[in-house]
Amino acid sequence: MTFSVVVEVSLRPGIADPEGATIERALPALGFQGIANVRAGKCFRLSVDASSEAEALERAISLADRLLSNPVIEQSTARIEASA
Amino acid sequence: MTFSVVVEVSLRPGIADPEGATIERALPALGFQGIANVRAGKCFRLSVDASSEAEALERAISLADRLLSNPVIEQSTARIEASA
Repeated sequence: MTFSVVVEVSLRPGIADPEGATIERALPALGFQGIANVRAGKCFRLSVDASSEAEALERAISLADRLLSNPVIEQSTARIEASA
Repeated sequence: MTFSVVVEVSLRPGIADPEGATIERALPALGFQGIANVRAGKCFRLSVDASSEAEALERAISLADRLLSNPVIEQSTARIEASA
């Protein structure tokens, strides 16, 4: 079976996020108030062949840790997207 | 009320995604088989002050279209994250 998996790679809590901070600083000038704690990360969508949802998620996470992220400063989460 | 919003910015369908294609090409050499249709994008997490979930999502999307994405080639989706 093929599962549609979304992997999100984000900086670990406590790691400085200059991209997010810059976005946050730009918001008032663009007229956006009341938006805080902006954190930037990456998103990957993949089709994973696996026999179960759990196996698809596990494969996506191991792939994310090896290829898509720097596990020292980043964490990866994966979820199944409803539409297959 | 403050809502935790996740904004995903991804290339529109049909727009070439060289980053995703490069990842996909690297997978077999790393021992990952059966993974296809890799698309790369960006993810942003924000805390949005709003009176309702719908308003928070609408503010996040208008922000994404103005500041976080290039609407010509990218599309933005927003969702509320369960933990506030």
